[in-house]
Amino acid sequence: MTDLTKTPILDRVKLPSDMKTLSDRELRQLADELRSETISAVSVTGGHLGAGLGVVELTVALHAVFDTPRDKIIWDVGHQCYPHKILTGRRDRIRTLRMGGGLAGFTKRAESPYDPFGAGHSSTSISAALGFAVARDLGGDPGDAVAVIGDGAMSAGMAFEALNNAGHLGKRLFVILNDNEMSIAPPVGALSSYLTSLYSRAPFQDLKAAAKGAVGLLPPPFQEGARRAKEMLKGMTIGGTLFEELGFSYIGPVDGHDLDQLLPLLRTVKSRATGPVLIHAVTKKGKGYAPAENAADRGHATAKFDMVTGVQAKAKSNAPSYTAVFARALIDEAGRDDRIVGITAAMPDGTGLKQFAERFPRRTFDVGIAEQHAVTFAAGLAAGGMKPFCAIYSTFLQRGYDQVVHDVAVQNLPVRFAIDRAGLVGQDGPTHAGAYDIAFLANLPGMVVMAAADEAELMHMVATAAAHDSGPIAFRFPRGEGTGVEMPERGQVLEIGKGRIVQQGKGVAILSFGTRLSEALKASESLAARGITPTVADARFAKPLDRDLILRLAAGHDALITVEEGAVGGFGSHVAQLLADEGVFDSGLRFRSMVLPDRFVDHDAPYAMYDTSALNAAHIEAKVLEVMGVAQLAGRTA
Amino acid sequence: MTDLTKTPILDRVKLPSDMKTLSDRELRQLADELRSETISAVSVTGGHLGAGLGVVELTVALHAVFDTPRDKIIWDVGHQCYPHKILTGRRDRIRTLRMGGGLAGFTKRAESPYDPFGAGHSSTSISAALGFAVARDLGGDPGDAVAVIGDGAMSAGMAFEALNNAGHLGKRLFVILNDNEMSIAPPVGALSSYLTSLYSRAPFQDLKAAAKGAVGLLPPPFQEGARRAKEMLKGMTIGGTLFEELGFSYIGPVDGHDLDQLLPLLRTVKSRATGPVLIHAVTKKGKGYAPAENAADRGHATAKFDMVTGVQAKAKSNAPSYTAVFARALIDEAGRDDRIVGITAAMPDGTGLKQFAERFPRRTFDVGIAEQHAVTFAAGLAAGGMKPFCAIYSTFLQRGYDQVVHDVAVQNLPVRFAIDRAGLVGQDGPTHAGAYDIAFLANLPGMVVMAAADEAELMHMVATAAAHDSGPIAFRFPRGEGTGVEMPERGQVLEIGKGRIVQQGKGVAILSFGTRLSEALKASESLAARGITPTVADARFAKPLDRDLILRLAAGHDALITVEEGAVGGFGSHVAQLLADEGVFDSGLRFRSMVLPDRFVDHDAPYAMYDTSALNAAHIEAKVLEVMGVAQLAGRTA
Repeated sequence: MTDLTKTPILDRVKLPSDMKTLSDRELRQLADELRSETISAVSVTGGHLGAGLGVVELTVALHAVFDTPRDKIIWDVGHQCYPHKILTGRRDRIRTLRMGGGLAGFTKRAESPYDPFGAGHSSTSISAALGFAVARDLGGDPGDAVAVIGDGAMSAGMAFEALNNAGHLGKRLFVILNDNEMSIAPPVGALSSYLTSLYSRAPFQDLKAAAKGAVGLLPPPFQEGARRAKEMLKGMTIGGTLFEELGFSYIGPVDGHDLDQLLPLLRTVKSRATGPVLIHAVTKKGKGYAPAENAADRGHATAKFDMVTGVQAKAKSNAPSYTAVFARALIDEAGRDDRIVGITAAMPDGTGLKQFAERFPRRTFDVGIAEQHAVTFAAGLAAGGMKPFCAIYSTFLQRGYDQVVHDVAVQNLPVRFAIDRAGLVGQDGPTHAGAYDIAFLANLPGMVVMAAADEAELMHMVATAAAHDSGPIAFRFPRGEGTGVEMPERGQVLEIGKGRIVQQGKGVAILSFGTRLSEALKASESLAARGITPTVADARFAKPLDRDLILRLAAGHDALITVEEGAVGGFGSHVAQLLADEGVFDSGLRFRSMVLPDRFVDHDAPYAMYDTSALNAAHIEAKVLEVMGVAQLAGRTA
Repeated sequence: MTDLTKTPILDRVKLPSDMKTLSDRELRQLADELRSETISAVSVTGGHLGAGLGVVELTVALHAVFDTPRDKIIWDVGHQCYPHKILTGRRDRIRTLRMGGGLAGFTKRAESPYDPFGAGHSSTSISAALGFAVARDLGGDPGDAVAVIGDGAMSAGMAFEALNNAGHLGKRLFVILNDNEMSIAPPVGALSSYLTSLYSRAPFQDLKAAAKGAVGLLPPPFQEGARRAKEMLKGMTIGGTLFEELGFSYIGPVDGHDLDQLLPLLRTVKSRATGPVLIHAVTKKGKGYAPAENAADRGHATAKFDMVTGVQAKAKSNAPSYTAVFARALIDEAGRDDRIVGITAAMPDGTGLKQFAERFPRRTFDVGIAEQHAVTFAAGLAAGGMKPFCAIYSTFLQRGYDQVVHDVAVQNLPVRFAIDRAGLVGQDGPTHAGAYDIAFLANLPGMVVMAAADEAELMHMVATAAAHDSGPIAFRFPRGEGTGVEMPERGQVLEIGKGRIVQQGKGVAILSFGTRLSEALKASESLAARGITPTVADARFAKPLDRDLILRLAAGHDALITVEEGAVGGFGSHVAQLLADEGVFDSGLRFRSMVLPDRFVDHDAPYAMYDTSALNAAHIEAKVLEVMGVAQLAGRTA
């Protein structure tokens, strides 16, 4: 590796066009420098390290060979885009990654013309690239479309749908399968085994052999060699048949860290391809940085760290994370009930199911990046007599929405949805916000929808979900740490559809759904100085609503304010519907519903995101004063 | 074929257990009788004919060999389940198919223990079957799980996700790939070509050859023969590698109408299989009924018909269907703007894009059953400078929801969503209800959401969508015929976020979003007899709301009633949020929001479904009287 502090070639590359005059030798050095700069940047910012290090050579090769931004490189998921950002005019801001006002952690159209399509969720790149390719052929934006997609992302159904459609349409299109055997968790699924078999049965192919699936694409002198190589390899490798059967020219596997292979290969396909081409590049996540290569997750996501030792500077936490509380509570419940099973879609770490799997390996199912299947698989398990807990982040549950409606809710099957990362999620920004689940779940007949106000409540809700066997039930909880409340020995089964009064006051009632409860209580403390003592209640359920509690609050107060970490259409809307139906508005009620704003909230620290969303204690206090002020005025004029 | 009126064997089969004593010869006759009975039933009821006729022999073979309901047969989509219903205790009600109070057109858990998993949307069966198989192995319900899935349904991403996971888990599981080359429309996609190649390169295999992918499953005497057959076939067929690569034992292709092949094959795999097995059966949609076999859609869905001639008794329509109006309007717009392209997910007929394709074949994309890809493909097209119209039914758009959020809305790309079948859909029942799209779209920042009040409005909305290039826009319209209004020569571009007063009245205002407008006007006529003249307005937009109109209606009337064909969380909720924010409720407003009820509405005639949902003119009238009555009472006491 080059001197970590010196980047003479990289210093000359302000934009990819500056790479056009570099020799292949200089490009190799550029890759080394780019790797150093990536490690250095992430050591300062934290973020996704391993994925970027795995595609340093691919990034250099693609920008060297293709003509970006006219040609479009579409990075699937976007975790791996930091080297790309460094090469495309954003090196000066690379140490602001994922910070408020700084660069996004993913590709983002609004950020750069070199990001033709934003990402965040996986497996979208081939669909988008096909869109660009078809648009081009119909007279839209010119240029090539190149999707770079990992082996994990390739396991998602929508990637298959896109391959199937692309193979059918036959448009010129490039898919780089970045096979690093490690998306976030170790890969699962038959496709993964298949991909491994493609390169485990034979050593890496040299260019000629590697191109066996693309003989027609190669310059004539290469063709005979490729044919011979193909003949030689017969029986040694099963070849790229899966992709070829779907209509792609398959080339590979090639060493994704070897620019001597990548550059001529990309130059050849760029000059020759007429249809869809898939290049199977094998890479190593965390490549070139020992602490990442040696980490269990290959340095997938990291806090700030010391560049030499790789030691991460993780903040100490006082309270357990919601995820950890969920995992512990589910393990407890499962210890008492062997019908409980856990399902994750490629997020065993993030959802806490990894801990569950250690205790109950036979009852844990990581289905891969496959939320649609995860939900219907859970529905099948429930129909077969099990108690499935489907642990999926709010934002990813969007991908299984039809299955929630059609396979779970319509059939009233008791699938439990453990919805982590509900609300705003911080550094991952708007693509990962859990903003819509209350709305899209609470309008489904028969669905029970809970939100935990704190980590003790989460324990109760896990217990409640385990006990609720008459239909589907969901509970949502946020990213990050709990509030530090005292934890019960064991979760209690809550009465379905019953909330609780946390503090009895008068004049105004604040009805919180979820973890804004602590902000409501803070607001209440602050209001006490002004002589205002609001009633504060925890709804616990958005569905079924606690009708009695809500009507009592409405009748006993001048004003009622609902607060939730979700978009309009959710809890507050259900409360408004109830109040309207009951005629409560007829004679007047100062009703307000505090919800997420009607815009996508940029990445920042979570507190800052709630601040800009006007959902912190100060905003609740202001809302109370606003409605009370009106009330006092009205009182005076009455 | 047997005498259409005599069904001596079928008469003896009340339940599948009655088939256990039948000889193979009697089973063949049972199949013939079952085909006749299916044709006879659908001639009376209308419904899905072709799919059922294609699986008559498969249905008989599966029930003869497997032990239902202990073993679970899961029919994907469910269009093909009529013969299954006839054999499983529902023959006496088969002539009530899809009628109010009658049998559902799909499998339905609530209807029969022989329907272990309901369907309606495609491609869910393998996930569900895997759930049953895993539950069984963990001590849940015993028995085998058999998924029967068509080649079209196999093209959906979630089927691939399920295959990938099933291949990985290696559980005993049966998938029957019912390859009829015709789902609803002719098949598209590379997978379809691949499947065709599997049987077009060689004649149907006999049992021995067919079982080449499952040599280990066959009784020993067969094995050598199978090996020889495999050797012989080498080079003649490319085999079932795609499925084998995903971890399945592949058997096929076999003639799905030949019980002499199906019965021994199923008996063998049932007794021998230890892991996942895929049987590739080639069938003919509409098999055995010439009018269906000869129809372009192979008798996919039919009205009542004459059994001898096959002539359908279609009701005459006075007004054009919304679908036809959409198609004509889009063709008009596309004739003036060559950036307009149309996208459908395997529903060219249902969405009207078939007509569009006839005029603009290069600008029409049928991506197969692949809603996730369809939406992101459209996003890519929009990013590449085109104007994509993504024509997807409301209920199916649920399957592309994450893509609407993540790829379209977050990036503010101008994708146009033409949402047909919005609201209740009649005979297809709750699985196909378009109940949630208003809620799940209108809470997305930047999304414009329109609903057409009649077919002329739909023309305006197509024009508006074509002109709106600054972000995503959706317009919804119902199944069925328009109201017969006078049609404009050309659609007018509407001002975004502006509604219209249709009738100025006083006292109460009815604000409709969508085609309930005609019911509101009917209610108004009826109310006139009582001396009440409501103001009736058409919101046109659920997002952005017409703030001025809504506040004016609220200020100028004692009561405001919103009406929509959607679940709570949609239009009425957005109006309530506005009224609350503006303090309108502070001093009282008799506000009501009429939405779909909080239950799944069973299949029936659409009018009857709206009746039970309390969304027809009579209900609007009653709601007006209710709120006015309260108002009059309040007036008396003031």
